[in-house]
Amino acid sequence: MVEIRYPVLLINFKAYSQSSGRRAVELAKVAERVSKETGVTIIVAPQFTDIAPVAEAVEIPVFAQHVDPVTPGAHTGHVTLEAVRDAGAVGTILNHSERRLRVDVIDEVVKRARELKMVTTVCANTPEVSAAVAALRPDMIAIEPPELIGTGIPVSKAKPEVITSTVDLVRRVNPDVKILTGAGITTGDDVAAALRLGTVGVLVASGVVKAKDWYKAIMDLVKPMMK
Amino acid sequence: MVEIRYPVLLINFKAYSQSSGRRAVELAKVAERVSKETGVTIIVAPQFTDIAPVAEAVEIPVFAQHVDPVTPGAHTGHVTLEAVRDAGAVGTILNHSERRLRVDVIDEVVKRARELKMVTTVCANTPEVSAAVAALRPDMIAIEPPELIGTGIPVSKAKPEVITSTVDLVRRVNPDVKILTGAGITTGDDVAAALRLGTVGVLVASGVVKAKDWYKAIMDLVKPMMK
Amino acid sequence: MVEIRYPVLLINFKAYSQSSGRRAVELAKVAERVSKETGVTIIVAPQFTDIAPVAEAVEIPVFAQHVDPVTPGAHTGHVTLEAVRDAGAVGTILNHSERRLRVDVIDEVVKRARELKMVTTVCANTPEVSAAVAALRPDMIAIEPPELIGTGIPVSKAKPEVITSTVDLVRRVNPDVKILTGAGITTGDDVAAALRLGTVGVLVASGVVKAKDWYKAIMDLVKPMMK
Amino acid sequence: MVEIRYPVLLINFKAYSQSSGRRAVELAKVAERVSKETGVTIIVAPQFTDIAPVAEAVEIPVFAQHVDPVTPGAHTGHVTLEAVRDAGAVGTILNHSERRLRVDVIDEVVKRARELKMVTTVCANTPEVSAAVAALRPDMIAIEPPELIGTGIPVSKAKPEVITSTVDLVRRVNPDVKILTGAGITTGDDVAAALRLGTVGVLVASGVVKAKDWYKAIMDLVKPMMK
Repeated sequence: MVEIRYPVLLINFKAYSQSSGRRAVELAKVAERVSKETGVTIIVAPQFTDIAPVAEAVEIPVFAQHVDPVTPGAHTGHVTLEAVRDAGAVGTILNHSERRLRVDVIDEVVKRARELKMVTTVCANTPEVSAAVAALRPDMIAIEPPELIGTGIPVSKAKPEVITSTVDLVRRVNPDVKILTGAGITTGDDVAAALRLGTVGVLVASGVVKAKDWYKAIMDLVKPMMK
Repeated sequence: MVEIRYPVLLINFKAYSQSSGRRAVELAKVAERVSKETGVTIIVAPQFTDIAPVAEAVEIPVFAQHVDPVTPGAHTGHVTLEAVRDAGAVGTILNHSERRLRVDVIDEVVKRARELKMVTTVCANTPEVSAAVAALRPDMIAIEPPELIGTGIPVSKAKPEVITSTVDLVRRVNPDVKILTGAGITTGDDVAAALRLGTVGVLVASGVVKAKDWYKAIMDLVKPMMK
Repeated sequence: MVEIRYPVLLINFKAYSQSSGRRAVELAKVAERVSKETGVTIIVAPQFTDIAPVAEAVEIPVFAQHVDPVTPGAHTGHVTLEAVRDAGAVGTILNHSERRLRVDVIDEVVKRARELKMVTTVCANTPEVSAAVAALRPDMIAIEPPELIGTGIPVSKAKPEVITSTVDLVRRVNPDVKILTGAGITTGDDVAAALRLGTVGVLVASGVVKAKDWYKAIMDLVKPMMK
Repeated sequence: MVEIRYPVLLINFKAYSQSSGRRAVELAKVAERVSKETGVTIIVAPQFTDIAPVAEAVEIPVFAQHVDPVTPGAHTGHVTLEAVRDAGAVGTILNHSERRLRVDVIDEVVKRARELKMVTTVCANTPEVSAAVAALRPDMIAIEPPELIGTGIPVSKAKPEVITSTVDLVRRVNPDVKILTGAGITTGDDVAAALRLGTVGVLVASGVVKAKDWYKAIMDLVKPMMK
């Protein structure tokens, strides 16, 4: 299993045109450059179709944005852990607010990912759901109040109690899982606040993807994570 | 909120023709008779369409088999907590293996049920999922390995370690939630085993619904629950 | 099979609190009164939990708002055609914009409804989808541009070409299916326009349910349908 | 829009390990070789993650196995038409029995594919569903009785009336759409029968993917399609 060093910046490319196809590779290369310059772990999560070219172009960890709960076989239009792994991904996001999953499906995929030595980051919308998914023992949890996603209003400022309450509830259930902060993160200040509140990284999307200057935007976000 | 006294026998009528329509009322009356004779709590969960006539006919607690995560309003073909409550239900089963739910949906419905003072029984297929749903603080959890449902092979005999492991994991997350055993339960011996393994009741369906003599079948199941 | 005489007013109660529980029975009785006074067919579609009490209280046709594609058996939290029929429904709405269905599921349920001599009204959002579902031979199609549902802006005024185009495309595929107009219908004028455009009735929800005076609202809608 | 010359052999790679990753490229190359040697159109449909490397390696048309009904934007874990097109796909399969879709979703994706000049092949399980999807005007329909998929029992032999009835119903709705035969096709004889029954090609998966000798298997299938 690839070893993830924390803190971590996880960039979700979503299906944005700004981070699709050739642009996915370019964005991943900028992320790699910042990671090399700062020593901070940056993970990129491009679309399924872009995993292979991105993984070939960069050495930083590549994640899928989702996988389906099926094993290789007669499944048309599904995405297996094996397929994203063979394309070069070392892990996957699961249960993003735009792709919610059944609780038994998260359990199944997290268990299979562990067998395949792949890393899982499970998103959650509330402290209670965070505690619930913590019981399934993924590697990371990302707490993201969905009403703040894409707004530029950082959860760390608008709803800090959501993060502290998440950290508190999750710790009682699972002391090992890493907790990321998501939703509305666009600046280094937001990241610094997320770290102060007890989480070890952030999950971002539009804050980076839609930035005019990717290098500047990513550098600003990782600065508070430098030792 | 209706007070549920434990141990408890929860009978899921499913969509079986043997427990539909007029037969749903008859089965509920037999359950009520056994409950009165033995003092053991018996909950019946008929189909949505049968909740009103069943709730009118009996005084034992009536549950829905599922509700949708929507509030009253513009939702065609959905089932709200308010609708099943107004029809006479005091609680609901959630996340049955035949009707699995997203983890955020379980969180949402359990929270709303609590506000409405309704009782929730959330099903789970593994010890890990049981621990996960325990973090959402429903009133009861029913651990049911799906491969045993409807088989007549009691989980308490075939996989006792699933139950003990569930009890163990759930207790670390939530000391208050009540745990039921489900899947393959057909006899009083199965119930006695379920109680010995640390659970406070059973969830049954075909074992009662398809029995030739409902009274005998239910009486056999509740005997080990009598004080 | 119950014979439906056209034109028809189909009232979808949705999950509105104004048309739930005891209020569902009251609304159905008002609809029945108008139907008797005018001779116009009025169908009521209450929530699943209200079908039995409504069907017992009135003699006009009662529909379900949706059914699941399963037969009686081990299906927890599902709604079968048999269950709604036994509760007193003579038909069902399918594929409402708030409860869209897979094309193979519509095919399956329409076929089973025909075997059970139950009436089906399949909703569609575009002329092309209307033509598609017409090929599955339901009894009625309701064309409802979803962007107008609940707005009070009648499709017959805002987008008459959607209706005429639907009538045109559907007729080439299936000359027998009855076509209803839905979305934004609140007045008799809207109904008159819907009839002029070649449809034989309307599907309404909020226009009736949220009216202050149900009798007046329904009477206004059916007047243009009187011979 | 890429021009597809008929008859056509469409090979669905599904999520089989035999046709994943590096093996996907190898299988596509064999298909290309047969296509060049025989002049018969062969389309390959690898997994999402394999579209880019396959499309780079071969000149025959590449399809996706499915796309989601979303446009580029904030959609995590979704697959857009634009993404598969940018990866090199010229079309997509839709509504395969392992990935059924809502009727309004098929309508939406087929319309958007047309705008993007991409080719669509919509699967259907019955003659009625075939007629329904024909009304949505995709480029091709593949009739596949699901109970025969993967069995090696060719629909053209086991249920020829399903194909003739499909051709008949589809033609009344849409004279232009091309019809393929699917399910259980493994030999040239099966293909010849499919052509005789009025369809212009076949959709295969395991019959090719699991063959010991891909070249031989594909050559056998396309022979009856040679002019």
